Amino acid sequence: VFARGDGAAQTSDRAWLQAMLDFESALARACASVGLLPSAAAEAIAAACDASLYDLGDIGRESAASGTPVMPMLERLRNRVGGEFAQHVHFGATSQDVIDTAAILVATRTLPAIQADSLAAADLCSGLAERHRDTPMIGRTLLQQALPTTFGLKAAGWLADLDLARLRLAEVAIDLSDVQLGGAVGNLSAFGDKGLAVARAVADTLGFEPPLAPWHTQRARIVVLGDMLALLVGVLGKVGRDVTLLAQDEVGEVRESGEGRGGSSAMPHKQNPVSAVALVACAQRAPGLAATLHSAMLQENERGAGGWHAEWETLTLLLRLCGSATAWGRDLFERLEVDAGLMQANLAAAAEAGIEEAANPEAHLGSAGELVDAVLAAHRGEGG
Amino acid sequence: VFARGDGAAQTSDRAWLQAMLDFESALARACASVGLLPSAAAEAIAAACDASLYDLGDIGRESAASGTPVMPMLERLRNRVGGEFAQHVHFGATSQDVIDTAAILVATRTLPAIQADSLAAADLCSGLAERHRDTPMIGRTLLQQALPTTFGLKAAGWLADLDLARLRLAEVAIDLSDVQLGGAVGNLSAFGDKGLAVARAVADTLGFEPPLAPWHTQRARIVVLGDMLALLVGVLGKVGRDVTLLAQDEVGEVRESGEGRGGSSAMPHKQNPVSAVALVACAQRAPGLAATLHSAMLQENERGAGGWHAEWETLTLLLRLCGSATAWGRDLFERLEVDAGLMQANLAAAAEAGIEEAANPEAHLGSAGELVDAVLAAHRGEGG
Amino acid sequence: VFARGDGAAQTSDRAWLQAMLDFESALARACASVGLLPSAAAEAIAAACDASLYDLGDIGRESAASGTPVMPMLERLRNRVGGEFAQHVHFGATSQDVIDTAAILVATRTLPAIQADSLAAADLCSGLAERHRDTPMIGRTLLQQALPTTFGLKAAGWLADLDLARLRLAEVAIDLSDVQLGGAVGNLSAFGDKGLAVARAVADTLGFEPPLAPWHTQRARIVVLGDMLALLVGVLGKVGRDVTLLAQDEVGEVRESGEGRGGSSAMPHKQNPVSAVALVACAQRAPGLAATLHSAMLQENERGAGGWHAEWETLTLLLRLCGSATAWGRDLFERLEVDAGLMQANLAAAAEAGIEEAANPEAHLGSAGELVDAVLAAHRGEGG
Amino acid sequence: VFARGDGAAQTSDRAWLQAMLDFESALARACASVGLLPSAAAEAIAAACDASLYDLGDIGRESAASGTPVMPMLERLRNRVGGEFAQHVHFGATSQDVIDTAAILVATRTLPAIQADSLAAADLCSGLAERHRDTPMIGRTLLQQALPTTFGLKAAGWLADLDLARLRLAEVAIDLSDVQLGGAVGNLSAFGDKGLAVARAVADTLGFEPPLAPWHTQRARIVVLGDMLALLVGVLGKVGRDVTLLAQDEVGEVRESGEGRGGSSAMPHKQNPVSAVALVACAQRAPGLAATLHSAMLQENERGAGGWHAEWETLTLLLRLCGSATAWGRDLFERLEVDAGLMQANLAAAAEAGIEEAANPEAHLGSAGELVDAVLAAHRGEGG
Repeated sequence: VFARGDGAAQTSDRAWLQAMLDFESALARACASVGLLPSAAAEAIAAACDASLYDLGDIGRESAASGTPVMPMLERLRNRVGGEFAQHVHFGATSQDVIDTAAILVATRTLPAIQADSLAAADLCSGLAERHRDTPMIGRTLLQQALPTTFGLKAAGWLADLDLARLRLAEVAIDLSDVQLGGAVGNLSAFGDKGLAVARAVADTLGFEPPLAPWHTQRARIVVLGDMLALLVGVLGKVGRDVTLLAQDEVGEVRESGEGRGGSSAMPHKQNPVSAVALVACAQRAPGLAATLHSAMLQENERGAGGWHAEWETLTLLLRLCGSATAWGRDLFERLEVDAGLMQANLAAAAEAGIEEAANPEAHLGSAGELVDAVLAAHRGEGG
Repeated sequence: VFARGDGAAQTSDRAWLQAMLDFESALARACASVGLLPSAAAEAIAAACDASLYDLGDIGRESAASGTPVMPMLERLRNRVGGEFAQHVHFGATSQDVIDTAAILVATRTLPAIQADSLAAADLCSGLAERHRDTPMIGRTLLQQALPTTFGLKAAGWLADLDLARLRLAEVAIDLSDVQLGGAVGNLSAFGDKGLAVARAVADTLGFEPPLAPWHTQRARIVVLGDMLALLVGVLGKVGRDVTLLAQDEVGEVRESGEGRGGSSAMPHKQNPVSAVALVACAQRAPGLAATLHSAMLQENERGAGGWHAEWETLTLLLRLCGSATAWGRDLFERLEVDAGLMQANLAAAAEAGIEEAANPEAHLGSAGELVDAVLAAHRGEGG
Repeated sequence: VFARGDGAAQTSDRAWLQAMLDFESALARACASVGLLPSAAAEAIAAACDASLYDLGDIGRESAASGTPVMPMLERLRNRVGGEFAQHVHFGATSQDVIDTAAILVATRTLPAIQADSLAAADLCSGLAERHRDTPMIGRTLLQQALPTTFGLKAAGWLADLDLARLRLAEVAIDLSDVQLGGAVGNLSAFGDKGLAVARAVADTLGFEPPLAPWHTQRARIVVLGDMLALLVGVLGKVGRDVTLLAQDEVGEVRESGEGRGGSSAMPHKQNPVSAVALVACAQRAPGLAATLHSAMLQENERGAGGWHAEWETLTLLLRLCGSATAWGRDLFERLEVDAGLMQANLAAAAEAGIEEAANPEAHLGSAGELVDAVLAAHRGEGG
Repeated sequence: VFARGDGAAQTSDRAWLQAMLDFESALARACASVGLLPSAAAEAIAAACDASLYDLGDIGRESAASGTPVMPMLERLRNRVGGEFAQHVHFGATSQDVIDTAAILVATRTLPAIQADSLAAADLCSGLAERHRDTPMIGRTLLQQALPTTFGLKAAGWLADLDLARLRLAEVAIDLSDVQLGGAVGNLSAFGDKGLAVARAVADTLGFEPPLAPWHTQRARIVVLGDMLALLVGVLGKVGRDVTLLAQDEVGEVRESGEGRGGSSAMPHKQNPVSAVALVACAQRAPGLAATLHSAMLQENERGAGGWHAEWETLTLLLRLCGSATAWGRDLFERLEVDAGLMQANLAAAAEAGIEEAANPEAHLGSAGELVDAVLAAHRGEGG
């Protein structure tokens, strides 16, 4: 449920290790470029910065003892580099530089899949809104039948928040442009007067803009990333909630198509709304994880005594969860079948039950069509 | 602790009632402007939309019974308007239109105080960073003395995240530009073909851009607002945490000045870091409240059965908490006294304890000064 | 929604003030009983410890400035006591002693209403389970029709968790038996060698067992209380969720009876499941509040710098929320009408749609009746 | 940081698979014992219920597609059993029966390590309290020096909450005695009139008491378990917070002993309080996870559409986190060195700074010693 799509691979232990090694490689080359290391050392280090050369399980076991994976990783990296160059590994950096930059790399490598899947979901949703611009259905408030509306307006509502969340998540990329490099207390002192030059070169090698300043205990950018991931998951969770409700046998207005999906071990004939349920599940987990990142912000002085450590797995889980949710969301929209006939039948039943407007829904749709048009236009305008 | 500053008044029950009445007034005038109500009715309604005319406690008690404050408010408003015009009150709207628009009004009325206080705090912080650009102190990691750094760099770190959080909160205003008006199921049907015109007129009267579409069960903008309020609180909480640590008697590098503050009922001689403690307290509460808004996103169909109700007090508390935190933050920076002599003494002690670099800190500050300059320049560039 | 029942009054500002004054009164008498104060002083203090003598708004405003309500309360209390006895007010105690003991008092005064309402709800629920022991209905999994079950088994499921939560909450009372009295750093030093005797006398006066030890920064008992309140709210929230689903027009198997309830400002004809919606709303808010209490546990040394302050309003909100939820829960069970005919009709429709077992539900109920009997027996055994 | 101790192995994917297979084995034997299956079938199934026979990665990959690991597990189990007996695998059960019972098994297999480590930690802590019953130190409130107290009273405070949390967690075992067996909708219908007998036999085989009733959407026991795990983590987090503060170079009253621990990649000479930091980190993560379990309680009708799925990994993380925290806690108490001399020096400094009582601390310890004695006596009384 929580590891669908490409996000799982992009946030795997191996992906993390590679991102950490990418930092070490970029650092070595940056130091060489300003004359702090021999070029040959940088090249030897860079050549050893390939995650496939190392045993993940091994590093994981030692991490439990030392508290971070950095020490075991560095030991193996130094062993592989060997000789006189080994001493140049990790020059001037601190553990947090490695892990924070790796976190930024892991996040920026996971976001494209999230963005592609959420854009695809939004585009499919816009197609639904367009096709069903004028498809009447009974609107429901507090889970009670209320007055007629259109399925197009419902889909447009989903779309409007999908676009808002996608936009906000895209803006987060700006906050993520800063690699972390500060050394022991954040002032780059090990690099002498070349600290800023090294930091810029590391950023450049890794494809980022020059960093503003170290952020070892300034965690706003991590928190904003977590919030916007959770936001997108929540927006998709709302879609999932609606689909589970509309797919009830007693309602029957939508279903997730697809052979062989959603079977039950006890009732093989059942066709469950699997993607919608997965979206609701993801949305149940994201708020607590995002709150953990907020709680962890109060990090002490130049290096947090616990708060920072609490971020790693939490952020990884949020990235994976959001990657999974966007994959399920795209899947849901690809499979969603809308039954306009049953919508009509439910309107007729509502009319019989005393909701007069349901007898003649077309006369009571108000501005539904124009609202759909406005949301679709905004979606197109935002590159949807 | 949690109701300092102007935010408390702006989020009071009376402020909420006035915002609800402002919606009713704007709605009546908007309807009149497109010919759906007599102008005289709109003026009579508008004249009665003054919160000082009503008994808050009375409305509160009835709200408990009916589940929302809208019904009791409308009953009193209709009574006061009286006569033939009473029937025109709340024409075409639903309870959620009132409360959501009131929430937007309350938020937009509270944000200026938050923004003014957080800007003032940031400016004071930038002054600290500038004055202490080259003031050496021992940097501390995991609460252990590490290597020399400067107090200026510490303040610059605070400032960088204050500015990031301020910027993100300012962007939220864009999401808040949409008043809520949708009627029973969100399609503005009670206004016939004049729904969009009425919605635009309501927005115009209240000083907002024309709305895109109703968002009764699309809560992303509320969630983003809550997140960014919590973010700012967390950024200030980190400042508070550092100040409580630096103000320890055993460290003594900073103190909050001010006579008669921070006394203890058991130990009147004590001078507690009151503002810093208040900031930490605010930061403990914000994450759980923000998470509640995320959890409440999965609102059913056209009107949520519980999730929406969970937002009201939660958002109010977050606004008040952030208003309080920014007031405490400004207060803290106004009072913060930095003791460069004790910083020097602590460096000397660190040197004696074996940290060689502390004996000659100026030689080990790396790029601290340049980093401070960069953060200050960015602060000035962002209108700080 | 969140202030129904007696819990609201028991957690009001006035109730808090009275509880704080009850502590001061008990402390004075305890000190007098061991000879630390003149009896006349204790009586003068006790006579002034009546919340109706003080202006709440006034104290509230000053609290914002001093960070706690204790200082303004003590100032007014000393003024009222006057003369030579004023100096004996609050002898040997610290602010946290007042507030923590008041919290325990407020909680123990609020719990009886919560327990009475939740027992009444459970008893009504057991009546439902008994009456509908053999009433067949279609069971629903993932919101899809599955196989036949009984309404009695559904109600028994609600009951089993209500009883579990009630039992757990009752056990919390044991943890709440400790009044707080420690003085400045928790060692009762102001009382000389009479500390334990004073603490026991305070407990005795307030109706508690002798306390074990001060718990100024040991917050487990507060956290457990918050958790069990949130648990009960969540159990009721599950009932509310089910009722909103079963009360859908398309399902129609239950409804909340009652004239004039659940009307909508836009659709006066609607009969909304008001109590069920309120339960879901309460259940959305409790988790974030309970998490705040967990987060606030890491309180520094002998007095927390922020964590403790974060507890006050959070615990008050949880008590009020749980009081409200239990009142709504009792209300829901009082009003719940079960429509066995529609359950039968839905079974017939399910049979037609291909669920063979639904055509002959009585043959497929398995052990439903026996399971109901077992839960009812357990309920009776636990004093239900 | 988060996978120390035996808890990690007890909550691994392999442990989960074995627990699921243990359920299938017990179910088959239970069915055979009441005549629903041939004994030979039960034995063939039981023989195949060994996790080492299956490829975990393989099952994991398919789980992502089907939404739960049950279907892929059953397919492989049926293939291995083969022949005519394959059809008897999983007879009468539903996926949730497998996973919920496996969760109970995983929890009950993880708790002993948690309990052993937390008891060891509490015993070591009681030793500290005893040895330092009369060791004076300066008490600190709001991180400011206040009045003298003893290290013994501080340790007794830690102990009191450790014992409270241990007791509460032990009680949870009672709630965990119910295996899950209900079949598709919870009424055991596939077993005809032998449902209760089968359920009892399954419980008996797995070493549990007879279950009361299925709890597919009644999640109180899971929530209470999560809460009490988080509570214990929080209590240990408070110890960690205090130790990080007391271990500051400027305070120096305690340290974590041990060669080669707590080194820093940038500053190899540093001796960080690794265990204390790990405890704080664990305590930052637990509240959000526990809140997720609360939020997930509102599960729909006979099977939740998302809430249940959100529990699996969340509960696993909490078990692992608590297992890790108790292992770190035990480690911390094993290594903690108390420096009574520095405590004395800090008292002297406090006296010089104007805290008169600190000049003669022994005269101002109040009831510290008696309070320590009381907590120690309670600890011994609870089997500590």
